[in-house]
Formats: sequence, C-alpha cells, structure tokens
Amino acid sequence: MPKKIRLGILGGGGDSLIGVLHRVASHINDNYQIVGAVFNPDFEQNMAFAKEIDIPTDRIYKDFDTLIEEEMKLPKDERIQVCSVLTPNFLHFPMAKKLLENGFHVICEKPMTTTLEEAKILEETHKKAGTVFALTHTYTGYPMVRQMREMIKAGALGKIHKVDARYYQGWINPIIHDKEKRSSVWRLDPKKAGISSCMGDIGVHAFNLVEYTTGLEVKSLLCDFNYLYDDNQMDVDGTVLIRMGEHVKGVIRGSQVATGEENGLAIAIYGEKASFRWEQEKPNFLYMMSDTEPTKVYKPGHAYNSEFSLDGTKLPAGHPEGIFDSMANIYLGAARAIRGEEQNDGAFPTMRDGVRGMNFIEATVESHKNGNTWVDLED
Amino acid sequence: MPKKIRLGILGGGGDSLIGVLHRVASHINDNYQIVGAVFNPDFEQNMAFAKEIDIPTDRIYKDFDTLIEEEMKLPKDERIQVCSVLTPNFLHFPMAKKLLENGFHVICEKPMTTTLEEAKILEETHKKAGTVFALTHTYTGYPMVRQMREMIKAGALGKIHKVDARYYQGWINPIIHDKEKRSSVWRLDPKKAGISSCMGDIGVHAFNLVEYTTGLEVKSLLCDFNYLYDDNQMDVDGTVLIRMGEHVKGVIRGSQVATGEENGLAIAIYGEKASFRWEQEKPNFLYMMSDTEPTKVYKPGHAYNSEFSLDGTKLPAGHPEGIFDSMANIYLGAARAIRGEEQNDGAFPTMRDGVRGMNFIEATVESHKNGNTWVDLED
Amino acid sequence: MPKKIRLGILGGGGDSLIGVLHRVASHINDNYQIVGAVFNPDFEQNMAFAKEIDIPTDRIYKDFDTLIEEEMKLPKDERIQVCSVLTPNFLHFPMAKKLLENGFHVICEKPMTTTLEEAKILEETHKKAGTVFALTHTYTGYPMVRQMREMIKAGALGKIHKVDARYYQGWINPIIHDKEKRSSVWRLDPKKAGISSCMGDIGVHAFNLVEYTTGLEVKSLLCDFNYLYDDNQMDVDGTVLIRMGEHVKGVIRGSQVATGEENGLAIAIYGEKASFRWEQEKPNFLYMMSDTEPTKVYKPGHAYNSEFSLDGTKLPAGHPEGIFDSMANIYLGAARAIRGEEQNDGAFPTMRDGVRGMNFIEATVESHKNGNTWVDLED
Amino acid sequence: MPKKIRLGILGGGGDSLIGVLHRVASHINDNYQIVGAVFNPDFEQNMAFAKEIDIPTDRIYKDFDTLIEEEMKLPKDERIQVCSVLTPNFLHFPMAKKLLENGFHVICEKPMTTTLEEAKILEETHKKAGTVFALTHTYTGYPMVRQMREMIKAGALGKIHKVDARYYQGWINPIIHDKEKRSSVWRLDPKKAGISSCMGDIGVHAFNLVEYTTGLEVKSLLCDFNYLYDDNQMDVDGTVLIRMGEHVKGVIRGSQVATGEENGLAIAIYGEKASFRWEQEKPNFLYMMSDTEPTKVYKPGHAYNSEFSLDGTKLPAGHPEGIFDSMANIYLGAARAIRGEEQNDGAFPTMRDGVRGMNFIEATVESHKNGNTWVDLED
Repeated sequence: MPKKIRLGILGGGGDSLIGVLHRVASHINDNYQIVGAVFNPDFEQNMAFAKEIDIPTDRIYKDFDTLIEEEMKLPKDERIQVCSVLTPNFLHFPMAKKLLENGFHVICEKPMTTTLEEAKILEETHKKAGTVFALTHTYTGYPMVRQMREMIKAGALGKIHKVDARYYQGWINPIIHDKEKRSSVWRLDPKKAGISSCMGDIGVHAFNLVEYTTGLEVKSLLCDFNYLYDDNQMDVDGTVLIRMGEHVKGVIRGSQVATGEENGLAIAIYGEKASFRWEQEKPNFLYMMSDTEPTKVYKPGHAYNSEFSLDGTKLPAGHPEGIFDSMANIYLGAARAIRGEEQNDGAFPTMRDGVRGMNFIEATVESHKNGNTWVDLED
Repeated sequence: MPKKIRLGILGGGGDSLIGVLHRVASHINDNYQIVGAVFNPDFEQNMAFAKEIDIPTDRIYKDFDTLIEEEMKLPKDERIQVCSVLTPNFLHFPMAKKLLENGFHVICEKPMTTTLEEAKILEETHKKAGTVFALTHTYTGYPMVRQMREMIKAGALGKIHKVDARYYQGWINPIIHDKEKRSSVWRLDPKKAGISSCMGDIGVHAFNLVEYTTGLEVKSLLCDFNYLYDDNQMDVDGTVLIRMGEHVKGVIRGSQVATGEENGLAIAIYGEKASFRWEQEKPNFLYMMSDTEPTKVYKPGHAYNSEFSLDGTKLPAGHPEGIFDSMANIYLGAARAIRGEEQNDGAFPTMRDGVRGMNFIEATVESHKNGNTWVDLED
Repeated sequence: MPKKIRLGILGGGGDSLIGVLHRVASHINDNYQIVGAVFNPDFEQNMAFAKEIDIPTDRIYKDFDTLIEEEMKLPKDERIQVCSVLTPNFLHFPMAKKLLENGFHVICEKPMTTTLEEAKILEETHKKAGTVFALTHTYTGYPMVRQMREMIKAGALGKIHKVDARYYQGWINPIIHDKEKRSSVWRLDPKKAGISSCMGDIGVHAFNLVEYTTGLEVKSLLCDFNYLYDDNQMDVDGTVLIRMGEHVKGVIRGSQVATGEENGLAIAIYGEKASFRWEQEKPNFLYMMSDTEPTKVYKPGHAYNSEFSLDGTKLPAGHPEGIFDSMANIYLGAARAIRGEEQNDGAFPTMRDGVRGMNFIEATVESHKNGNTWVDLED
Repeated sequence: MPKKIRLGILGGGGDSLIGVLHRVASHINDNYQIVGAVFNPDFEQNMAFAKEIDIPTDRIYKDFDTLIEEEMKLPKDERIQVCSVLTPNFLHFPMAKKLLENGFHVICEKPMTTTLEEAKILEETHKKAGTVFALTHTYTGYPMVRQMREMIKAGALGKIHKVDARYYQGWINPIIHDKEKRSSVWRLDPKKAGISSCMGDIGVHAFNLVEYTTGLEVKSLLCDFNYLYDDNQMDVDGTVLIRMGEHVKGVIRGSQVATGEENGLAIAIYGEKASFRWEQEKPNFLYMMSDTEPTKVYKPGHAYNSEFSLDGTKLPAGHPEGIFDSMANIYLGAARAIRGEEQNDGAFPTMRDGVRGMNFIEATVESHKNGNTWVDLED
C-alpha cells in the first residue's frame, strides 16, 4: 500500500454526526490522513475543532475558497488529493464543482445537489475533470448489501419482478406536530431545505438501494406525499409506485413520521427463482427465500459469500460490524479508485447515482404536484 | 352455557383446507355441533366424507336447496341454526341470501360476494332477516389484533396518521411463470375467479385488517396491478395508495408472486403518540413503538391486555395459539350473537365488513383500469 | 376412517387449562367423541361442567371407580375405549393402573407417576394389558420437533456431541418471594407436590425433548438446585449436567423463577456436521446451522419436510399452528395406535418415556441431595 | 481535548484480526496516534507492515526490549505513553510487567497471563507502578452491556437470583474432528496454548460479562469439560455451575464445537423484579422482561438510556454500531484514565478483571480434574 491519501474535510465540525462517520470511516482501513479542512464557517470554531481532534492546524483554512487557493499553491505531492464534502446540502454542488474543476477527487455527501439541473452540470464537470467522484450512499457499503448485488448479478433470483423498499423514521414527529416548530425549522422550509424533505433526505437512499442491488433502473414513478398539516410545505411521508421494466414493478415507502421507527431502511426483492430480504438495523442478516427450500440466512465473513462482499468484512463471522464499517468500505473503494487500482464494480456510488437520485427526487415532487400522475425518469 | 348450536356445513369436504379450519374452530370452545351438511356436490363423496369424519349421515343432503327444504320441515328446535358457507366464491352470495331469507344464521367465507352490487343486496336481505351474519376474516380473531383495536380505541396511539399493510404470498409463482398453467387454472380465469385475484383473495384481508384495527375507513384509493405477463388477465400483485381522512394516508401491498413468502400478512400503524407493528406469521408478538420509550412487546394471556384480547386466549402466556384459535374466536363471537348474548364490539366481522371489502376490490380494479386514478369508496 | 373413538375424561373440569387443551386436541382430527367422564370429584360440579360443554350426562360418573364399574357392564362396542387422565399428579398412577388392568387404553398427563417405583409397576401392568398407553409430553407433537427427530435419525447432523436444553418460566416468582405464600401453596409442599417442583414439572419436558429428538439416552447426570429461600423445601430452579455417551455431553436448565420468561422451552443440538436450534414459543421456526453454509430456516408444511413432520401440519405454510395442534398430533397418534394402524415411530410418547422421565426426576433430586454428584440413570 | 496519546503497538501485524480491531478502535474517538511498534518478531515483516499502513518507520523496533530501551531514552513528552499488547498469550505477562515497571500505561489483550500466579504478580507490579492498566474484554464496551450494568446497579432487577451466560462457537470443529490436525495445532497443545482452550479463550469472556453486568462475584464453581476425543488434551466445550451468594446461582456454558455458532456470547440475568437478555451478535437490542409488563426492547442512543451507555454511542438510534465501536469505548475509557480525567466506573476492564479471569480459568480446570467438584474462587 502506498502512502496514505491526503484528505481534506469540508464541514463536519463540532458535534456533527456526519463528521464523526466520515472521519472514522476514513481511518478504518489505514488509507487516509486528514491534512487540511474547513470544519466550520466560523474560523475560531474551525480551529478549536481541529485542536480538539488534534489535527495539525497549519492547513485549517478560513473558508472553502481559501482552501482551494492555498492548496493549489502547494506541490502536487503535498496537496490535498481528495475532499470530503459534508457541508449543508446547498453547498454540495458549488463545492464539488470547484473541486473537480481544480483537479481534486471528491467524496460527497448526498443529496449530491439541490436540483437535477445542477446534477447534470456536475456530471459534465466530472467528465472533463477525470478525477474520482464518490457519493456516500452509506448503505451500499454493507457486506450483505454487496452480497445481494453480486448474487442478483449472478442470476440467483432469476428475473426480478417486484421490489419493495422502505425507509421509515420517526424523528420529525415532535417537530411536525408542534405548530411553532414546524413553521420555523430549516428542515421544513423549502427555501433552505430544497424541494423535498422525506424523499430528498431518506427516500433517495431507498431508491439508490433498489437500483444498486437489482442492477435495474426505475423508468417511471407515481408518488403521493403526506404533509400532515395544511400549513406544512414539505413532504414528511410518501409512497412511490415504481416501474422498472416490462412487468417489473415495485414500491418505495418513505416516512419521517413513522413514530418509533429509528432508521428503518429495508428492502425486499422478489425474483422468479428466489428473493431477498434485508434490514439496515440488522445489517448482518440477509434472508434468501424460495418457494421450495428453507429460507437461508446469509451472514458476513463466510466463505460462501462473494469476493466483493468478503472484501468489506474485516473480522470473522459473528463479530458485528456496523455503519462505520459500511462507510469505511466506500472510503476504501474511493481510495483504490484514487490510486488507480482495479476493483469490483459497485465499490462506491458514483456521479451516475447522484444524477439518478436527483432525478428521482424531482420526479416524486412533480408526480405529487400533478395529482399523483406517472412521471418518467430520464434514461 | 345452553345446548350446542346446531351447525350446518356447505362445502369444505375432502381435503379442503378451509373445511378443516372451520370444523376445528367450531369445536374449540364447545359451542357447536355439526348436524347437517352438503360437503360436496357429488353425493357419494358427500356421504363418504361425512362417514370419514363420523358425522350422522341422516342430514347429509344431496344439495343446498334440499338442505333448506328438508331443514325447514323440522321443528325449530331441531333445525340447523347456522350454516357455514365454504363453497366456491360465486356461491357465497346465492347461498347466504337464501339462508338469510329462510331465517338461518350465516357464517360466510370471504369474499362475501363476487360484486359490490351483490353485497348490497345481501346487506338488504340481512337487514330484513335479523339473524346473525359473520364473515370469516380470520385474522381479526387473533388476540394481538384485538389488542391493537382496543388500545387504538382507547387512544394509545393518539391520532393515527399513517397505515402500512401488506399481504405477500408466493404460491402462484409456479403457475404464473408457466404459460400452459397460467392460461388454464381457474384462479387466473376472470370468468371463474371473479374480477381480481390478488386483491380479491388476499388484499381484501389486509384492507379489512386496516379498518378493523384502526377504526378508520378508507375514503379513496389509487391502485397499480402487476400482471407479470401480457397474456395473463388477473392481477397477481398490486400496490394500493389509500387515504383515510384529512392527512391520514397509507398503503396496502399485495402479492401472490412474492417468491418465498408464505402467508405474509402484516400491518404497521403509526400514530402521533405511538405505533404498532404486527405480523401474522408471528401472531403472538405485538410491538408497540414510541419515540421516547423502549419498544414494548405485547404477548397474549397477560393481565396487561384488554379484556377483549384476553377473552380470545385459552392458555397461559407462552403457549402459542395459532390460526385455528383465531378462527375459533370468531366462531365464539358468532355463537354468542346467535344466543343473543352481549359482547365486545368487533367479536366477529360483519355484513358491513363484507360490503366494504367488495367496495375495496372493485375500486382497486377500477383504479387500475383507469390508469391508476383515485377512486372513492362509498360511505 | 372408522367410527370415532369413545373417549372418557378424568379431571379437567371447570376452568382447568389442561382440560381445554386435551378436549380441543381430541376434536381437531375428528377422531374422538367424549362419551363419559369424571370431570370433578364434586358430583354437582361434575354434572354442571358436563352441561356447560354440552356432553350427554348419562355417563358422567360420581367417581373413577364407578366409571370403571359401570363401563365394564356395557357391551364392548359401547364402552369407553380410552381415558384421558388429567387428575392431580398423585392420581395418575392408580388410575392408569386400574384402567390398564381393565383393558382400557390410556392417555396420561405427565408426570406419569410420583415415583420411579410406581412407573416400573405401571410398565409391568401395561405389558400385560397390551393396550395403548400414550403420555402427553405435548411438545413432541410440534411438526418442527418431529422434523428434528427425523433429520437426526437420517444423519443430517452427523454424530451428535453436545445438547443444550432449557425450560424457563417465571410464574412462581410472586409465590416464592412471599414468605406466607411459599409456605402454604401445594406446589411447594413436598407432601402434596412430590419430590420436585422445577424438574418434576418442567425439567422433565426438556429431558424428554432431548431424548425424543436425538434418539440418545442420558446415561448419567449431575444436578444443582436453587431453592431461593432457606425455608423453601422444593427446587424452583436447577441446572443438570448430562452425559449421553462417550464424549457426548450436555446441559438441561430449568427454572420457575426466570422472571419474565413465559414458557421458555428450547433446545440446541450440536452435531459433527450440523446443528439445530428450536424454541417452543416460536414453534414454527427450526434453525439448522452449519459451519460452511447459510443457516437454514425450516418451517412446517413445506414439501422439503419429512413425511412424519408433514403428517402433523393441517394447513399450508405460513398459517401458524400452535400448542393445541401439537397436542392434537399426539391424540392422532394414539388414535391410530388404538385402531391398530401402522404409523411412524415417535407418533406419541410412550410408557418408556414415562419411566425415563421419573428416573430423570429422581436422579436430579438424588444428585442434588448428595452434594451434586453424578448419578446413573437405569438402562 | 489535549494532544493525542502516543500509542505503541506490540504484535497485531500482517493480517492479524486483533491488530485491525485495536488499530481501528484507537482511531475512532480521535484520541490516539500510533508512534511506535513491534508488529512482528521478524524485523523485515515488521517494517513492511508499518509501511503498508503508512506509519512512520523511525520508531519501528526490532523487538520489545529494544522498544523499551529506546523509548526510555526519549524525553517524556515524546515517549510512547501506552502500549497495546497483542502478542501471543504467553507474552502478555512479561511484556505487561516490564511496561508497567518502566512507567508505561498498558492496554492488554486477554487472557492477561497464563496462570493465576502470574496475574497476582502483575497485580502487585501494577500497584507499584500507578499507571493505567486496561484489559480488553471487548464486550464490556457495548452500550447495551453498559446499560445492563447501570440499570442493575440502580436496582432495576431487584435482587438477582439467577444468571445464565453462554459463549458458543463452532470454529474448532474442522480441526478437532481431524486426528491429524487436532494433534498438531498449537491451540490444542497445552504446552503452547496454556491450560484451557474453551474456558481460557471464550469462557472467561462470559465469566467477565457475568461479573461486569451484575456487580456480583462468583464465589465457587463446578465444571465439566468435553474433550470429544480421548487423544485430545484440551477442553473444547464445558459447562460451569456457579454460585454467587446465598441462593444466587447460575451457569456459564462454553463451546468451540457448537457447530454453526459464530460468536455466540449471550447472557440472561434474572432478578426478583425483572430480567435482562442480551446477545452479542445482535448487540443493539437489550430485552428487559418482567412478569407483569410487556417486554421492553432497549436500543442504543435513546435518551432513556443511562449516561454511561449514551457516552458509548456516537450516532443516532438506528445506526448500528458494532464490535469496533465497543472496543473503541474501552480505548476511550483508557484514554480518559491516562489523562487523569474522572469517568464512570466500569469504563474499561481492569487488573482486577484479569486476576478474576485467571482465577476462573484455573478453577474450571481444577474442578474438572477433581471429578467435577466445587472449587472456591479467591476473594
């Protein structure tokens, strides 16, 4: 393994949860070293946080533009190689764009942009840049998710004819039911949070999981949102009918008002020969069902798994790995790509996933606004 | 307890599964005695079956009309009091109608009729008859289903804002994927099986469970079927968006091609204060979730359950009861009604459930046919 | 199928739970008809109960001896053929003995007797009688328990080297922790309840399950009881080390003070090639584990199950059957034996199981009393 | 937070699994920086590994003694502060001893030593040294294990009267059943592996978990091993009866031949008022049972948990953390201790746990050798 990759961090300071997740994930496989950052728009807090986690402060910059400017002055073999973009959603696009334009690799939180239009511009920018762009749809890093993908690719389910995904949370309940709160939080303000809350924040993960595991693309969708209150402007719940091909249908269910649900992402994929069921909160258990045989419970770390799945497991079977490890697998994929190493297809979500995701979000909003009509996704 | 109720059986002979289910259920609480029957349209098989299960053969009739005719000749205190209608679907309506018109009580398998129009006629007949009509939506008999209903009624969830029900099976897979078979079985022939396969057979159970547990009524729905093959004329899979009131929405998912699923009826009900999750294949475990407390696992037979739930449990906690016991609870409810005893509301599904169910089935078909538009259910 | 078997019931009146269980089980497969009984030592209550469940009262007898006397006067083809003995434990032996001596078949609750000595006498009586004797170790009737037995017999686990069974309940907690109650209830009075509470009541079920499923016999055991209080004279908890052969060892754990446990019978059987795990409270899920393949989940009603297992399932997969159905399978086995039909080995627990069980109970008591030494069971 | 703690690593090079676990755990909370190491006794491999994970090579030493010697020459504020001892078991004692004698803090893998005698010597050394000694009984770091400990301490279970722990694995099966292999692997050679395989390697974890969660100490034990073959000299399976006080009893079950089990550590603790059940392979689900209320499912990250439990959770509820995170919590506790910060009791297993563990292991061996007699543990 060559030298650690020089990593810059944008956002994720203070007690940011996404910050911890990315930082830990970058460490797990001994691939990255944080060399520069703008953890926080407030420089004092920025520096304080760098000290708190004991990162050298000489390359802690006062803002993103300064980071670019100063890093570009450094010789290539000292310069930050890749930046993790963990800033508020509306900053993903301009930051990722500028990074790519300046030859940096990018690891970007989702949603990739705030509109499909931006996503396509970014896609163009990326094509020209030729650097690595990884989108952190974290859940694709789980060994059992990868096992689904590989087995489906190998034909284990036969032709798929039905997909059922859900992402249920309940955390927005105390906000949405409080008139005061629901009219003041940024999460429910379209000007700040973008066009969709439930679909933009979590529905898109379920959508990505559907496409990632099945290898199929959603062709069209019909969506119905629930706003819960007349004075609420953002979807906090919704159900999406999807069509993925001739007689291949499914449903994506999202909710932020599913009381008591924590982080309830789950998927069921039904094929002609067999099926899969998987739940994010029990990530190390993958159920394969058929009409004629006992249900099989796949678990990580066993020799019966695919190489790609095993690549993402660091410990023997029975030693539970969790979401840090899933994200770490995406960072590992990005590292190999940055180093130009060959690796398994699907090692990290790409620009294509980002464009698809924005297309999905916009289509759900359009469908709902049109009175629950079918909306085609772009090819 | 007075004398056992004199029960007649229509259908359910030979190795009929529904026959076993009803027969056992009628025995479980020592309430019924089978005194007459037309188990089978073939008289020889009819008699043979009566002998097989050792029922006196003197009131085994050659057909339904003869049963009515002969029983009416008997004095009231010898005559069959209630008939269980277990015949093919298209016979439910004419038999139930004639039974009611002649003053019999009726226990009827679902679907109650083949059309909503018939259902309404039957409803009128029933009003005039004044006898007991019980529809065997079996799953409403489970103690934990009844516990949901009672707790919701008592306000344990607060205002309900989302309902998610599913009924997934995979048994039709080997038929549907075989061109020969799918064009020949009666289950996929609209002339024989009625207008809907998946919704008519199982979706309607999920619909009934939604209304039974929440006490809410579905106001309108939008449905998308999957036929899997161009030459297949019956829905074998479908997703139904539902609206139950101002900002109360949900989804009912049905499938007969969900490979490897056995009898996967399940429901999740999300309220402002708390939620329920329950699965038919693990009927003795009811999960109550909230945003602030540990999830609670309710089980039958505990003093913390409602009286209505406890009424349906015969053994101490930890002694699993199953679907026979669930059906037995419905038979128990019917028995008490026949005897004119007061009892808990919801003790058995009624004519109203039957009319609602047919309305649901027809609405799903209409919605799909119209290109997935919203269809209102009648009040 | 010939005429229903004429069944007599001893005990099980009023709100007796064991009474319901046996009565329902006898009905389930249309094999038995209750024709006579002594439900209760109080004749008034006896008659009242017969009326409550609407049984003809002409053969409701004032006591057991009268039942024998009067029935023996009846011609053989009217006489009770088999009696279910559901009376308090100390009556099992004298009643079963007299029944056998008079040519009746017997279905007997466990524990079969109160001492091993009685058990052996009964064994001798039974040999002479030549009638059917079935002991209701209810849990052996579950389809998945039978599946374990058949697969083990067929070699699916290879050589077994470890067995781990448990039966945990918590119901005695409120009694044992109350000084007043624990010194007054009959369950904790050795004069009334026999020599053992925990092992005699539930441990013996776990022991029976071990021998029934593995086909191995326990050769010797070492036991440690827990009495919880100095003034308590009966075991309410205990752990038993067992040896079943050269290098075949295991453990049986029993408790009536396992707070919050309901009816927690479970078994794990580890073989050279594979293993089983099964829990009574989720009786329809059998887990087969191996070191090299995904864990397999066996469920009832599938064609992949053994004939013997399938024989005990009346409904398609996914329709949960419970403990009534398990007991019904034992009644079915007894019926076939009474009719002289050939059937699968293991169709019901036998006299041998009863003798073994009493040997087990006495050995645990002896081992504990001796300061936790090894005690051999008889061959 | 002050500067990162300077960490040295002994062992854990190459594809060592324990190496990954400790390295990742040390990174997770941004507390440690690896500054020196002897990853491997072979200096070439040692250096190669340092390069592979991109650690500066200037303080990669040729052996442990050199590390001590060279580091002692450095000024205190550059010197390694704490060493993680991940070497083969027999080296734990001499290395930990020398480290403590030279004023280093120590994080030590278990078993702490190979004999109780060594353990006591180390205890003395540690008392004199006054530095921090943390033993990595990894499982004590799980938030739900900590929740059990805190709730028990607060009296949630009332008086505990029964404890049942198990640690079942199946990995040694392919070795033990192969005559060739079982006589050649170091794991089954008492000269290399110490006096116990199953109890020394995993049983001791279960023992530690029992004492850690309940706050009780095992007073005496009785143990029966299973060797499976006459020519095998090491326990690969065993059951241990334990006594923890007046009428407080329990059982610890260990196995390395439990076919198909992966890393099956589990515990059930039964108290007068309530009970806990927890399994390592589903570490984020803690079940609290009582005789009168629905079972409660505790999960990490909720406000209802104790402060100590919450301190070990980095992400919101529903984002599964695993064994890396558990170990990271122990490293966090050690870091705080090294910095002299106050913290919750139980933040990491201590010298006392190590001495207790060795006492347990030796006692099991003695009990088995003596023919399964009771052996007292030291106070």
